[in-house]
Order: sequence, then C-alpha cells, then structure tokens
Amino acid sequence: MAEAVVTVDGWSSLHDTRTFDWPSWKMTPEQERTQAIEEFQGLLTKWEAVEEEKNGSHSVYKVVGNKADLMFFFLRPTMEELEEIKRDINKSKIGDYLIPGYSYVSIVEKTMHNPMAEGKDREIDPRLEALLKPIIPKWEHACFYPMARRRWKDANWFEISKEERTQLLYAHGMTGRKYAGKVKEIITGSIGLDEWEWGVTLFAHDPLQFKKIVYEMRFDEVTSKYGEFGDFIVGNYLPKEDVATYFEL
Amino acid sequence: MAEAVVTVDGWSSLHDTRTFDWPSWKMTPEQERTQAIEEFQGLLTKWEAVEEEKNGSHSVYKVVGNKADLMFFFLRPTMEELEEIKRDINKSKIGDYLIPGYSYVSIVEKTMHNPMAEGKDREIDPRLEALLKPIIPKWEHACFYPMARRRWKDANWFEISKEERTQLLYAHGMTGRKYAGKVKEIITGSIGLDEWEWGVTLFAHDPLQFKKIVYEMRFDEVTSKYGEFGDFIVGNYLPKEDVATYFEL
Amino acid sequence: MAEAVVTVDGWSSLHDTRTFDWPSWKMTPEQERTQAIEEFQGLLTKWEAVEEEKNGSHSVYKVVGNKADLMFFFLRPTMEELEEIKRDINKSKIGDYLIPGYSYVSIVEKTMHNPMAEGKDREIDPRLEALLKPIIPKWEHACFYPMARRRWKDANWFEISKEERTQLLYAHGMTGRKYAGKVKEIITGSIGLDEWEWGVTLFAHDPLQFKKIVYEMRFDEVTSKYGEFGDFIVGNYLPKEDVATYFEL
Amino acid sequence: MAEAVVTVDGWSSLHDTRTFDWPSWKMTPEQERTQAIEEFQGLLTKWEAVEEEKNGSHSVYKVVGNKADLMFFFLRPTMEELEEIKRDINKSKIGDYLIPGYSYVSIVEKTMHNPMAEGKDREIDPRLEALLKPIIPKWEHACFYPMARRRWKDANWFEISKEERTQLLYAHGMTGRKYAGKVKEIITGSIGLDEWEWGVTLFAHDPLQFKKIVYEMRFDEVTSKYGEFGDFIVGNYLPKEDVATYFEL
Amino acid sequence: MAEAVVTVDGWSSLHDTRTFDWPSWKMTPEQERTQAIEEFQGLLTKWEAVEEEKNGSHSVYKVVGNKADLMFFFLRPTMEELEEIKRDINKSKIGDYLIPGYSYVSIVEKTMHNPMAEGKDREIDPRLEALLKPIIPKWEHACFYPMARRRWKDANWFEISKEERTQLLYAHGMTGRKYAGKVKEIITGSIGLDEWEWGVTLFAHDPLQFKKIVYEMRFDEVTSKYGEFGDFIVGNYLPKEDVATYFEL
Repeated sequence: MAEAVVTVDGWSSLHDTRTFDWPSWKMTPEQERTQAIEEFQGLLTKWEAVEEEKNGSHSVYKVVGNKADLMFFFLRPTMEELEEIKRDINKSKIGDYLIPGYSYVSIVEKTMHNPMAEGKDREIDPRLEALLKPIIPKWEHACFYPMARRRWKDANWFEISKEERTQLLYAHGMTGRKYAGKVKEIITGSIGLDEWEWGVTLFAHDPLQFKKIVYEMRFDEVTSKYGEFGDFIVGNYLPKEDVATYFEL
Repeated sequence: MAEAVVTVDGWSSLHDTRTFDWPSWKMTPEQERTQAIEEFQGLLTKWEAVEEEKNGSHSVYKVVGNKADLMFFFLRPTMEELEEIKRDINKSKIGDYLIPGYSYVSIVEKTMHNPMAEGKDREIDPRLEALLKPIIPKWEHACFYPMARRRWKDANWFEISKEERTQLLYAHGMTGRKYAGKVKEIITGSIGLDEWEWGVTLFAHDPLQFKKIVYEMRFDEVTSKYGEFGDFIVGNYLPKEDVATYFEL
Repeated sequence: MAEAVVTVDGWSSLHDTRTFDWPSWKMTPEQERTQAIEEFQGLLTKWEAVEEEKNGSHSVYKVVGNKADLMFFFLRPTMEELEEIKRDINKSKIGDYLIPGYSYVSIVEKTMHNPMAEGKDREIDPRLEALLKPIIPKWEHACFYPMARRRWKDANWFEISKEERTQLLYAHGMTGRKYAGKVKEIITGSIGLDEWEWGVTLFAHDPLQFKKIVYEMRFDEVTSKYGEFGDFIVGNYLPKEDVATYFEL
Repeated sequence: MAEAVVTVDGWSSLHDTRTFDWPSWKMTPEQERTQAIEEFQGLLTKWEAVEEEKNGSHSVYKVVGNKADLMFFFLRPTMEELEEIKRDINKSKIGDYLIPGYSYVSIVEKTMHNPMAEGKDREIDPRLEALLKPIIPKWEHACFYPMARRRWKDANWFEISKEERTQLLYAHGMTGRKYAGKVKEIITGSIGLDEWEWGVTLFAHDPLQFKKIVYEMRFDEVTSKYGEFGDFIVGNYLPKEDVATYFEL
Repeated sequence: MAEAVVTVDGWSSLHDTRTFDWPSWKMTPEQERTQAIEEFQGLLTKWEAVEEEKNGSHSVYKVVGNKADLMFFFLRPTMEELEEIKRDINKSKIGDYLIPGYSYVSIVEKTMHNPMAEGKDREIDPRLEALLKPIIPKWEHACFYPMARRRWKDANWFEISKEERTQLLYAHGMTGRKYAGKVKEIITGSIGLDEWEWGVTLFAHDPLQFKKIVYEMRFDEVTSKYGEFGDFIVGNYLPKEDVATYFEL
C-alpha cells in the first residue's frame, strides 16, 4: 500500500454558479430591482468586512458562455458559514433570479511532500498560514476546474510510491513556475466532499494565460498519465462598483 | 466462482435530498409559512417519537453547495414506512417547496466476514442489534456517498477469493479505526435496490475529518484498486429547534 | 461467429414510471380530485377486466425514494395497446399530475437453451404459454432493473460459444432456484427496443430478498464477468382499494 | 492508414421526437383544439404533396413508452427544407404542445464496398436512385437507433483494412437478408453531423421482428466487436386519418 | 516528457446556442414582437460595424434538429466583450425567448509545428494575422464540434514525440486540402477553458461536404487512434435580411 501524503488544510471553500433569470428580472418593477441590487451590494459589503478582518475571502465573476452567468467563490473558516452564505443569497431578493447551478465544496489544501522542510510549525509560519487562509486575488479573470487522479490498472496514482508522486508533482510545479506573475492559483481538496478530488482556481490578468498554462501542463506526466478533468468555468471579475451596471436594464 | 459473504441486514434506509423553492416561499403569506413550519415541526416530533421507541431513526441536514438544500436520512423497519414518510413530506404544506432531488434506497448491512466469530446469535447479541438498527448520531456534520466495487478484467471484486476480500476489508477497517471518536459511519447495502452497491454515511464534529479519512482510505488497496464512487453530499445537522430560523425570511 | 440462441416471445411489456405533482394536486378543488380518482379507478377496473380475460396483465407500485412516485407495469399482446394505455393515462384527469419519467419497452422472453427439451410445441405446452403471457403476481414488493451483457475484448458475451453461455446461465439459474417461494421473476427482452438488452422484474413478500438474490447472483460468473446494470426501481404494490388513500390529502 | 470506403449520398434526413403537453392541451378550448388539429392535418397534406412529387418523404409514429409521444421522420433534398419543416411545426398552433425532444440529423447513405459492381452511374441507375431518395414505407411499426463503430485499441473499425470491413458487412448483410419481407431499413450517415455515426430506421408489420433481427445481428462480428448503440425508439405508424382521434379528448 | 508545441493565439471565441420559445413568442402582441425583432436587427447592425472595422466577427445559424434553434458564433479581441455580448442578447427583448443552451468558449489558435518556417514575426505576417483574427465566411452552412485527444495507455497524444504529432497532423492536413474550395475551417483551442480541448467550425456551400470530410478524416491515424468528439451542431446561415422572416408568425 502506498503511503498517503500529509496534507495541511485551511479554509472551507464554495464555488457557487448561478444562471440569472433575465426574463423575470425584466418583469420586475424598477423600484424592486433597485432594492434588490442595493440589498445585494449590502451582502457584498458584509463579505468585504469579513475579508478585511481576515475571517474569509470572496470574489464574484461574470461567466463567459452559457454554463452560468455568475460564479461566486467563497472561503470561510467553517462549512456552517458556507451554508449560511448560500442561504443568505437565496433568501435575498436577487436570489429569486439567481438560479442555482453547478457548485463545488472543498477545503483549501497544501500537500506536504516534504513535511520536515515545508511544514514546520503551522502556527508560527505565517507564509503557510497565508496559503491556507488565502485572500482571493482580485485579478481580472478566473478559471475554475475540478480534477481527479486516475486509478487505472497501469496508471494508478494511489498505488505508486510517495517518492514517485512527489517527483511528478515537482516537475509539474516547475511548469507552473514559468507562469509566476501571470497566473496565480488556489488549490482546494475535495476527497470525501465531492466526486472530484481537487479543485483548481486560476487567476490571470490575461485569460490567454489559462490556455497556455493548462496546455503546457497537459504534457506533464502527472497530467498526461494520471489527470482527469471536469468542466472548466471561465469568468471576468465583477467588482462591487460594477454590480449596478451588470443588472441594469 | 467466488463465495458470497454472509450479510446480516437491519433497517431499511432512505436518503432523500430536496431543493428548497425559495422564490415561491417568499410569495407565500406569512401566516401560511408559519403553518407550514409548524406542520413540519409536527412531522419531526412524530419521527422523534418513533426514534424514542427505537422503531426507527432520522436526521436532517443543511446541504453545503447547490446539490441540494436539505438531506433527510431515514431508517425504518420496512420499505412501506419509507414510502409513507416520503408521501407524508410531499403531502405536507412545506412539501410544496421541497423539490425532490437525488435519493438513495438501501438496507443497513453488516458483512459477516467471520460469521462464527462475529455473528453468533443475532437475537441475543445486543451489540449486533444496535449496529443493524442504529440510532443516527446527531453529530454536527454528515457526509453521504454511494459506491460500488469494480468488476474489471484485472480487478474484479466479485471474482477474487473470500479470503482476499476479507483481508482487504480488514486493512481498510484498520485505517478507519484511526478515526475512532472523530468519525462514525453507517453502512447500508443496495445491491438489488440501486445502481450503486453500498452507501456510506459518515458523521463528524469537524467536516475536515471526512476529507482526512476518505483521503487516507483512497490509498487502501480495496479502494485504489476496486472502489468506484458516486457523488458526495455534505451537510450540517439541522436540529428541530433551528427549523424555524432556517425557513425564516 | 457464435450461434444465436433461439428465443420464444410473448406479450409486449411497458414499465412506466411517473412523478406525482403534489403541489398542483393540492391546488385542485376536492370535487375535481374525487372525479380524477374515480376515473383512475375506472381505468384500473378496465385493466382488471383485461387481466381476467387473460388478454394482458398489469400492476401498480408505490416507488420508494425520489426516482419516481408510481411505477406501472403493463403486459399486452401488442405494442399498439401499450401506446394506447399510455395515452389513456395521459388523457385522463389524473394524468395531468402523473409526470412521465423513465420507461422501458420490451417483450416477454424465454430463452430456449435446449429447444428440443424445453420448447416442444408452444401451442400445446400450457406451461410455456403461461411463461410467455404471465399474470403479474400481486406480491407486496417489486424491483425492476434493465441490464446488458458486456461486449468487451476479453469478456464478450456475444462471442463465446452457445455451450458456454448455456452453462453460465444454468449456474445462474441454480442460484435463482434457492429463492423459490421467496422471489418470482419476469424476464423481458429489449434488444432492438431499448439501449438495455433485458429487463428483470422481481417480486417478493420481503424486499430484503431483492438484495439477497441480486447480491448472491453478482458472484455468478455470468454476472461478475458479463453483466452490466441500469438503475434499480423498488416499489410497494398498490392495490386498487388503496388508491383513494394514496391520493388523499 | 486504412482506405475510406466510397459512399454515395441522397436525401437529408431528420428524426424529430416530441413529447405532447397533454395538461396544456386539456386547458385549451375545444374550438382552438379543432383548429390546431386541422392546421396540423394541413401540414401533413402539404408533406404528402411533396412525397407524391418525389421531392421528399415523411412518416409520423406514436412512440411506445415515455421517451417521446410522437416521432417525425423527414427526408428532403436539402438541410434548408429540414430546418424549415421544424420551424413550420413550431410555428403551428399544435407546435405549442409538441415539446421538442431528441432529434437526429443525417443523410441517406449507401456505402459502395464494390463501387465498380454496385455504383455504376448513379444518374442512370434507377435502383440506386430509389435507395438514395427512398419513399418511407408506411408499415405499421418503426424502430430508430443511432450507432457508431468502435475505435478501440484492439477493435478499431477505422484501422482495419477495407477488405475486412467489406467482408464483415457482407456477413451482416446476409443476416439481414433472412428478414426480407419482414423488415425494411433505411440507413443514414451522420459522421460530421452528429456524435453518432449512422442511424438505422427499421420498419416492420410485427414489432417482434425488430427484436429478432437486432438480436441475431448482435452476434455478427461487425456488431459484437465493433458496434456501439445509442438509444432505441419504437413507434406505431400514425396515418393522417387517425390524427384527429389521437388528439381527441 | 513530450515537448509542447508552440501555439499562437488570436481572437476569443464564443459559440452560443439558443432554443427559441415559440409558445411564449406567439402569446406576445405583434407590436412587441416587431420591436423585439427591430432591436435584434440593431444588435446585428452593431456587430456588423465591429466586423467592418475588423475588431471582431460574427455569424448566426438556423440549427437543423432540436439540439437548438439558433447558434451564434462570435469572435472578439477579449473575453470581456464575449461576456458583454451574451449579456446584451439576454437583456434585449428577444433574449427573453432565446433560452440559453450549449455554449463553448475558446481562442482562435494556430499550432506552430514548424515555428521557424511558419511563425516568423506575427506582427509583420499579415497572413498569420488573418488566420488569428478571421472574418467568419458567410457560407450557407456551418458545422461545429468540440474534440479532444486521447490520453490512453497505448494512445496518449500528450506522450508521443513532437515529431510524431507533427507528422500525424501533416497527413491530416493533406486530407483536408482535398476539400479546398468546398470546406473552410476555423480551429479554436480550449484547453484551460473547456472540458474539450479544441473546437472545429466548418463552413460549406453544400452540407454533404461536412459528412464527406469528417468521414474521410476519421480514417486518419490522428483521428482513428487519438480523436474523441463531442456533439455536432449543424446550421444554415441566417443573414440579417432574413431575420424578420425567421421570427414571423
């Protein structure tokens, strides 16, 4: 039996996509729409306060294509808060138009391939703390996709040695480093929480970099041989000040 | 032909997920909403009485993410009762807002790998009786997922010897024991009842433990080589006293 | 090329599942509901007359879980009658609430592995006639699932010899015989009619027997090596005299 | 690289399934329903004129089971006409109740395995012309299914030699010939038009023949080794004179 | 590890399919319908201006079959514009009837198998510029399908050498050249943007050519061994001057 790698875990995470019900929105009187937008801005303000206090983080994206219209990405210390946020949105007026779509529940994860060298003491290592409780970068574009590792007869990630896994991931990391400054990422783990095993959320100023990095990484053995991917969702960052314009008729 | 393992079976089981129709709920007059909540609390009280008399057990969870809003987990002596409970919910006022989603029908199961040593006489073994007719632990978090064993050319669970299966499951059980006190589980079998073969319902005070135990177990040969998983649903326990708050606008 | 086995075929068969629209039903005035129930009881009476004249058979089940609310199982001499029955239900008042779900079209089939020994003359063998035009047993529980045989490189049912197929099915039949008196079955074939190749409808007084027989059979080589299964639907028999209670608010 | 076989191609083809919205139909005043039926009969008359002029062909089927209620099968010289027909149905009054379901776009195809012997000159071979621009037989029953050929490592239809493909298809054709007079077929090709590669539409006086021919053909190597199938739709022919009865309440 | 091929990338791309809600459209007063059509024509005029300024391109297709009614194909310099176009459609009056369906987000891509010979300097090579920022040919028919390359044990596109990939794609290109003048294509890449890796949009005067080219290419080793395909959508070009007729009742 292969040895499991130690993971350290941080905030709980929710990716929540919504389709906006434009036909119903248009049938709503302007005054109600204005109230709905203001209430939604109030939610954003509340979430900003949480982020400022470093008790969580969030970001909203305008999704390209019809897979969804908006994608929310929330990080919180507990699963209770994530469920409450979903309910807050659904209970809000604008929630009536935000038809729930695909969502993904996970926990921010850092794999400790060299726990001695990397892990040290989580409590006193602020760098690790920042990785486990990350403030989502407010870059212009985000890309989310879930993934898993194959358990095939001749390509079983969970049966190869820990050393081999570490080596494959190291090479993968080297590919990633070429994109420093162009692409940031937050890795969340979802084994035990979702049918996919990990979620990757990428951030970029230029969305072409999503294509470039994932394309180049597809040639890494860890991907070409062991990687399976779910669907990809690409969105443009929606800052609070653009919310009114977004919903404006 | 490999020898089938003896199973002993207990209560019938229903996992029933629902999406709550918040837009319609908001259009419902407050008085009707109050009545609907009270009627639902009445159902919960009725189910509690069943649980107190040890004629069944139940639990309700607030689901994280959009796979559902609520998950009900019911155990009853018969399939008749499970169908009636579903109908009771659907006939109740609040049932109009609880849109049926994924469900899973199974029977509590204990596999007797060493029937001589373990099985003894069910009638006089209260420990076994408690396993087959379990009272669902009211821990803060639950995680449900269905699974199956592969029937692949080189990894066919139903073709390897009973001894090998027992040994693989024993090692798996050893992994599970590390989580004693942190994770409880109820295993239900659904061969002949569902396309998946078994259902695993985990309970924890800290949902991170779901990730830790399922991650570690993925390296067990019984999983890495033979396991196939359906989707995972994670929820936070909803006690009766919080029901009014849950639905409050 | 492997030799095809001779089949003899009987009545056409329709499994028709429906989800009941309880919210709309509750908005229907009591008088209309009563009329709808009476009209539905009239359909049942009409179908009973067909069954009494041995021109067909039918049964209705209350489905456990959310896959459906009701499952109808109809046997008739022709496909025309099956389509008309579907249309009769849809045209009836209660049809407005019976939202069509999964269905399965097939023909009662008896495989003649030893046509000389078994087949004889269908016209003069009343036992075979009864198998091909069966009256559905009105036992308390039913379980339906569709299945197919693998056409894999090393496990291709349609490439092994007729003798091997006969032998594997014989062993399978031996497992089935252990459940005589506990489980009855009707096998229907759907090659050319559905993406699945066969449908199995089981009947039992105790639904635990569905789990026991299908579990034990999963170890038969014909299943472990060649069997693929669709989803399973489990229901409790709904006699005509309980129809009013079923729909009662 | 294996050599592609020459195909000759005829009319464009559309299989268009619809679910009928009986609940809304029942809420429609009788006069409107009568008008809708008459308008639909007018469409059928228009299509009949096209068929009489040998500028296309069509047929309508009452589908058995819940996969659909009606299946339209249209053949026309161009894709433009097929899109217009769909739009004509949708724009007609009865189109409001004919909810679009599964559809399949293809082109009538004859594979020329021996183009010298078979193909000759299309312009002067009326037999080939009739095959490429077929009038749909108005037999009592139809069965449609899409299919593809495997591209597996050890069973790759597109990598074996043209001779082997011709030989396998010849044996397959021999099986088909046994059903002469019982089963007719129209083969349409959809590579480049649909995810499935070919569509098979069978016609019979007795629907049992669909089961018999497809069952027997499943043992042909071309099927057992290379065939993959989509779902099967079975329907009973609906002549124009029965249309009023079909929709009658 | 195989070497990644250099790609040069152009405009961002959105394929956006819609189902038209004819029943609701018919219930809309004529004056509103006329306004909706005029507003939509205004959008088309706006997009035409963009195309004339070579800041993007677009085309609209009437889809054959029920997969959709309309398919929009948009090319723009940025993902922001693509999301805004989607929102413009949804905010427009006719957007209320254009129910969003399947969509595909990608970026126009040219793979540089011989970057020295082909790539030169993008800035000064107008031919390459035209390939990366193409004006969509307004031919009568279009066909769209997404695809991926296999990562199987014995057929892993991302593990074979760059030379082998170049050679296989060269042979593939030779097949394509036979269709010069009959079929045009725009290749877009979506690794990192969609679960499929590439999108192929074909254009033809005669849709039979879609079938001929894709059929012939299926025998190319790059396809028969490494190609996986999503679904195909076939449509007829809808010029602006035919828009009123399209929606006319």
